[in-house]
Amino acid sequence: MQSAEEYRVAAEPYYRVTDGEDALYEAAYARRMPMMLKGPTGCGKSRFVEYMAWKLNRPLITVACNEDMTASDLVGRFLLDKDGTRWQDGPLTTAARIGAICYLDEIVEARQDTTVVIHPLTDHRRQLPLDKKGELLEAHPDFQLVISYNPGYQSLMKDLKQSTKQRFGALDFDYPEAALEAEIVARETGVDDETAMKLVQIAGRSRNLKGHGLDEGISTRLLVYAGQMIAEGVDPVAACRMTLVTPLTDDPDMRQTLQAAVETFFV
Amino acid sequence: MQSAEEYRVAAEPYYRVTDGEDALYEAAYARRMPMMLKGPTGCGKSRFVEYMAWKLNRPLITVACNEDMTASDLVGRFLLDKDGTRWQDGPLTTAARIGAICYLDEIVEARQDTTVVIHPLTDHRRQLPLDKKGELLEAHPDFQLVISYNPGYQSLMKDLKQSTKQRFGALDFDYPEAALEAEIVARETGVDDETAMKLVQIAGRSRNLKGHGLDEGISTRLLVYAGQMIAEGVDPVAACRMTLVTPLTDDPDMRQTLQAAVETFFV
Amino acid sequence: MQSAEEYRVAAEPYYRVTDGEDALYEAAYARRMPMMLKGPTGCGKSRFVEYMAWKLNRPLITVACNEDMTASDLVGRFLLDKDGTRWQDGPLTTAARIGAICYLDEIVEARQDTTVVIHPLTDHRRQLPLDKKGELLEAHPDFQLVISYNPGYQSLMKDLKQSTKQRFGALDFDYPEAALEAEIVARETGVDDETAMKLVQIAGRSRNLKGHGLDEGISTRLLVYAGQMIAEGVDPVAACRMTLVTPLTDDPDMRQTLQAAVETFFV
Amino acid sequence: MQSAEEYRVAAEPYYRVTDGEDALYEAAYARRMPMMLKGPTGCGKSRFVEYMAWKLNRPLITVACNEDMTASDLVGRFLLDKDGTRWQDGPLTTAARIGAICYLDEIVEARQDTTVVIHPLTDHRRQLPLDKKGELLEAHPDFQLVISYNPGYQSLMKDLKQSTKQRFGALDFDYPEAALEAEIVARETGVDDETAMKLVQIAGRSRNLKGHGLDEGISTRLLVYAGQMIAEGVDPVAACRMTLVTPLTDDPDMRQTLQAAVETFFV
Amino acid sequence: MQSAEEYRVAAEPYYRVTDGEDALYEAAYARRMPMMLKGPTGCGKSRFVEYMAWKLNRPLITVACNEDMTASDLVGRFLLDKDGTRWQDGPLTTAARIGAICYLDEIVEARQDTTVVIHPLTDHRRQLPLDKKGELLEAHPDFQLVISYNPGYQSLMKDLKQSTKQRFGALDFDYPEAALEAEIVARETGVDDETAMKLVQIAGRSRNLKGHGLDEGISTRLLVYAGQMIAEGVDPVAACRMTLVTPLTDDPDMRQTLQAAVETFFV
Amino acid sequence: MQSAEEYRVAAEPYYRVTDGEDALYEAAYARRMPMMLKGPTGCGKSRFVEYMAWKLNRPLITVACNEDMTASDLVGRFLLDKDGTRWQDGPLTTAARIGAICYLDEIVEARQDTTVVIHPLTDHRRQLPLDKKGELLEAHPDFQLVISYNPGYQSLMKDLKQSTKQRFGALDFDYPEAALEAEIVARETGVDDETAMKLVQIAGRSRNLKGHGLDEGISTRLLVYAGQMIAEGVDPVAACRMTLVTPLTDDPDMRQTLQAAVETFFV
Repeated sequence: MQSAEEYRVAAEPYYRVTDGEDALYEAAYARRMPMMLKGPTGCGKSRFVEYMAWKLNRPLITVACNEDMTASDLVGRFLLDKDGTRWQDGPLTTAARIGAICYLDEIVEARQDTTVVIHPLTDHRRQLPLDKKGELLEAHPDFQLVISYNPGYQSLMKDLKQSTKQRFGALDFDYPEAALEAEIVARETGVDDETAMKLVQIAGRSRNLKGHGLDEGISTRLLVYAGQMIAEGVDPVAACRMTLVTPLTDDPDMRQTLQAAVETFFV
Repeated sequence: MQSAEEYRVAAEPYYRVTDGEDALYEAAYARRMPMMLKGPTGCGKSRFVEYMAWKLNRPLITVACNEDMTASDLVGRFLLDKDGTRWQDGPLTTAARIGAICYLDEIVEARQDTTVVIHPLTDHRRQLPLDKKGELLEAHPDFQLVISYNPGYQSLMKDLKQSTKQRFGALDFDYPEAALEAEIVARETGVDDETAMKLVQIAGRSRNLKGHGLDEGISTRLLVYAGQMIAEGVDPVAACRMTLVTPLTDDPDMRQTLQAAVETFFV
Repeated sequence: MQSAEEYRVAAEPYYRVTDGEDALYEAAYARRMPMMLKGPTGCGKSRFVEYMAWKLNRPLITVACNEDMTASDLVGRFLLDKDGTRWQDGPLTTAARIGAICYLDEIVEARQDTTVVIHPLTDHRRQLPLDKKGELLEAHPDFQLVISYNPGYQSLMKDLKQSTKQRFGALDFDYPEAALEAEIVARETGVDDETAMKLVQIAGRSRNLKGHGLDEGISTRLLVYAGQMIAEGVDPVAACRMTLVTPLTDDPDMRQTLQAAVETFFV
Repeated sequence: MQSAEEYRVAAEPYYRVTDGEDALYEAAYARRMPMMLKGPTGCGKSRFVEYMAWKLNRPLITVACNEDMTASDLVGRFLLDKDGTRWQDGPLTTAARIGAICYLDEIVEARQDTTVVIHPLTDHRRQLPLDKKGELLEAHPDFQLVISYNPGYQSLMKDLKQSTKQRFGALDFDYPEAALEAEIVARETGVDDETAMKLVQIAGRSRNLKGHGLDEGISTRLLVYAGQMIAEGVDPVAACRMTLVTPLTDDPDMRQTLQAAVETFFV
Repeated sequence: MQSAEEYRVAAEPYYRVTDGEDALYEAAYARRMPMMLKGPTGCGKSRFVEYMAWKLNRPLITVACNEDMTASDLVGRFLLDKDGTRWQDGPLTTAARIGAICYLDEIVEARQDTTVVIHPLTDHRRQLPLDKKGELLEAHPDFQLVISYNPGYQSLMKDLKQSTKQRFGALDFDYPEAALEAEIVARETGVDDETAMKLVQIAGRSRNLKGHGLDEGISTRLLVYAGQMIAEGVDPVAACRMTLVTPLTDDPDMRQTLQAAVETFFV
Repeated sequence: MQSAEEYRVAAEPYYRVTDGEDALYEAAYARRMPMMLKGPTGCGKSRFVEYMAWKLNRPLITVACNEDMTASDLVGRFLLDKDGTRWQDGPLTTAARIGAICYLDEIVEARQDTTVVIHPLTDHRRQLPLDKKGELLEAHPDFQLVISYNPGYQSLMKDLKQSTKQRFGALDFDYPEAALEAEIVARETGVDDETAMKLVQIAGRSRNLKGHGLDEGISTRLLVYAGQMIAEGVDPVAACRMTLVTPLTDDPDMRQTLQAAVETFFV
């Protein structure tokens, strides 16, 4: 069995609470209620889970879900050994054993068997049947399951079933307010406050284009990239092109619009 | 062989009989008639099976079906061992050996081979052919098969074949009556009767929206979540948003409608 | 090699001949002609094969086909053993070796390789090539292949190829005549003749709805379930709802029509 | 290596030459030209290959192709043994080694890798590369490849590539002339000539319905089945319904038409 | 490691140069430029590669590609041995090690991973990463990659990516001029020049029907088959029907047209 | 563990900086920012990464992605050994361990699990969870991830998710300016400057046809092929047909247009 210590969040992650979401999460954790975090790419959902795990002093095991992931990837499998087969716990099983918070990032990307496997862990049973091993694992009292979900992404083909959705409490996330986002950018990159606010304003313009030519606006993460390049001495316009414009889209019109937004603030 | 004891339901599950369904089930069990439980998400089908298993003092083995599940996941498979291959019973085989009630939750999610494998267990033969092992298992006299089925879900692609359906007696389930549901919520969360009834009334409004913008109404389980948050001291409106509104839908209009229902009772 | 004895049908199965089908089958078996049994769900095809196997005193091996079944599931495969690989006969191979009747139920559900594998067993060769094992098995002189087929089910995608169909003699099956069916229901459940006839008449009404809202009518098997519940003391209307109405359909109009038919006879 | 003797055709198969096809085949075999036999189900293609193998005194290895068959099923594969892996020749490889005629029945049913694997055996190279084994097998001088093909079946999705087709000489097959077919039926079943001719005439009518409601007409094989039943003492009309009508179609109009044809001759 | 000798082309293959394609190939080989040979079925592409391998005195390894072929089939895989796993080079790896010409016939039939695996062998790197083995193989200085491609075949779904195409020099191939083709047919079959020319003229007519009812015209290979049958003493009209008409098409009109062309020259 | 030395770029790759892209890359590498290189086939993206790896003196591990590649191909897998299973790092894991630059060429070709596996390596975590091995690998401080992306290719089905895109800074690449491209061609092939410029001008014309009948223009790589053939003494028109026209397209009109461009400069 793996030890809880190696999944402990060592230092306090940088996270700014905006609307009491930490208190709501703490109440949910007190009841071990499974939680679903909803919001766009790069707005801080993963960081929030890390922050809460640190605050609650619980180990955290994160799994990035994908469409080729099987239930065995979560639960575990038999490996061939010199004495035959040996069982190896998957990350979900490890979390249930050691009492960690298990964070399944972008759960809808996974196949349905991955989704269904969490059902008995998310109702009054709090069990994980390891069918292949013939073990019925009772979850550790401290175990909690958290999933994330980007509502903008979900197509008709990829959505959670109601019988899954209705097993979770849920919190909405969005990009931080401008002043707070600028504070984050300045703090994480070393640029001055004015530059940070310019970057946030460029992002704001791009976020208004969501659904009007862009799939997503510029995330806080990309603003941090831009700030890093500027802090490395790169010309701000070149830095923004490299981190805010070119990664986002290949549409010439959209690129021109974003480039114009950059030049409004930096030329 | 696994022992029946580890699948015994230890304590009486909290279940409120509403319409004689326990007597009908007992009559069906007396003939070992395979049973199908029909009804929406979170209305108590799984709890009912647990309750009946406890009442009849039979072990219970539950399997959450999914579209990637194979017949081998139910029946068993050979594992590689240091002396070659070793057979390991799957949950269905275990149930048939030890005389348990085997509950296949959301059977239509499974692939057809999973569905067909139950045929010889559900007619006069009461056998399970373990073809790969070359064993023809006669089911234990106490064995019974139970499946669940959510009629609201079934698409054209996912339905049971008539040759499968016609092997089961069936019981309809629905959400409990308001007074009973409030009693359940109060009992399971610790909130007072008035708060519990408010929550039930909010759920009632959402259930009228089923098919008019919502795929499902608020389940009893989510009401229990809401009550738990209120019992933890969370403001009722925030508690309801987190547990009754945000998990259910991302449609802005539907969210506003649900939020209005919450505020009718709690503001 | 497995012994013929364990596949012997121990006691005479309860089957009522209706139209000389036993004599036709005996003539076909005399020539070892492969046979195809056609008819709706639950009308007695499987029971007929059991009856004939008992009458001819041949072992019977039944395989419920499904869309995930491979040729190896029928023919056999190598298993890993401590001394390397060991061949294990599949049910078709076993039947061909010991001279059993092999009954492939709902053959069209299987993949094409499963269908093609029976070709050399169903022409003048009467051989089964075990390609993976490098053995050309000559079928036992008593071996016969029987398949079933539900014409109502077959979609364009799932049908037997002509080169397969034209390897079989065929017999049509249907539900028994009313008087006979009532006799069967009474005999198998213990209800009186009048009750049995009422149940048969309800079934008759449902069978007229086939293609007009129902995929299939109520089968003899469900009538037996209804009779069993009544014999257990359940109220006839509740017993019929549980066994004849609820399993069959979720369409509210169809349910009302069936319920009305039940009440015509039992209220 | 397997011995040629076990694939030798022991006795002269019953085959009636109709149009010099034996001489053409002998000329093709003299040059070891790969041959393609075209024609409808059950018209005698397989029997012809057996006959020619007997006449040329060559061993014959027949493979019924199917859509799940892989190149490894033809060529061979490594099996796990107590000393590691052991190579086992597939039927095509065995044929190429021992100088047999290899007959791939309904080649278009197979996957493309199965089709491509025969290319180097069907041009001037006459080689079979066993890539997995690292062996380049030179075909035995007596080896010849023969495939069959039913033109009526081929959909757009299932056809041979031109680069495959143009590796074969080809012979057309069809049902035998009436007099000859009657002779065959009489000889193989023991019915008198008049009865045999009646059966052939019924078949003739059905063959005119091909493409007008029937996918295929009644094959010679089914006529033999009908004759066998009559020879067993079954009433001719019942025998024909069981062997010529019921197996062929489930369409009520077509059944009535065929039944009328039967009654024209036997009532 | 396998030896180069077993892949050496022993005798000079019969090939007639038509347009300096041998000199162009030699120049390309001098720079080890990867080459793509384009042209219809059976026009001599494979023969040309053999001829050039003989002329340049390089070993030749040919792989017929197909849609089920994986990158491992080309590159190699681990086999299970009594001491664990043992690596076995695939044909592409063998060619890169021993300095052979590797000829991938009909590359577009293969899956994309097969196509991408050749990228690092076809640019300045001339490397083959054996990722599973953890080896970065530098190609032998004499190694060259050659692929073939039939432009008439390619559907929208099956085409090479531009990033693959632009790694190859390319040569167009077509059927030989009439006089040359007749010389080839006479030489390879033993028929007289007049008969050979008649066959070539029949082929010419069929090639004009390409795209007007035929997918491909009659190839040189089929002409050789026809000549062989005539040399065996078969009547020319029967020989042509068997080798030029029946293999090519099942369309009655096209067959009649081709048959008329045959009779123009041979009746 | 594999050593960094075998992945070291030995000699300075020939690369001509055009627009300060080396300085931007160096700034990005200083922050270990994941980078995405965008541009058409054969314009020098791979060469640029090699050049930067040489300049920064970092080992370089390149992986050509394809649609059959799994996450295990990148991360690693267990191999069977005589003492059981042995873990073997994949190329991404090796790069993260030894501090290499890992270059995933044409990442969008890979399956989604391959894409998601890079997420924790491309945010503040810089970790690679080896779930199957139960190891959480912290990336070496010098590790950097680089991916390439051809915007012209991406169909609706094949695009990176926004949550992946927004993890990368990005640089646009295009073919070099004419004078520079001519210098490259002359230097790499040995042709004189005038010939090199002619080739570049032919390429320029083809690039204007992109989207008007050609999927891509002639790449610098094909120009180098043309120059090599001319340097080998091949007639320039024949050399251009073989390397610039025939590989690119099979459309007769496009071929004529390209051929005319060739003849404008070389006849």
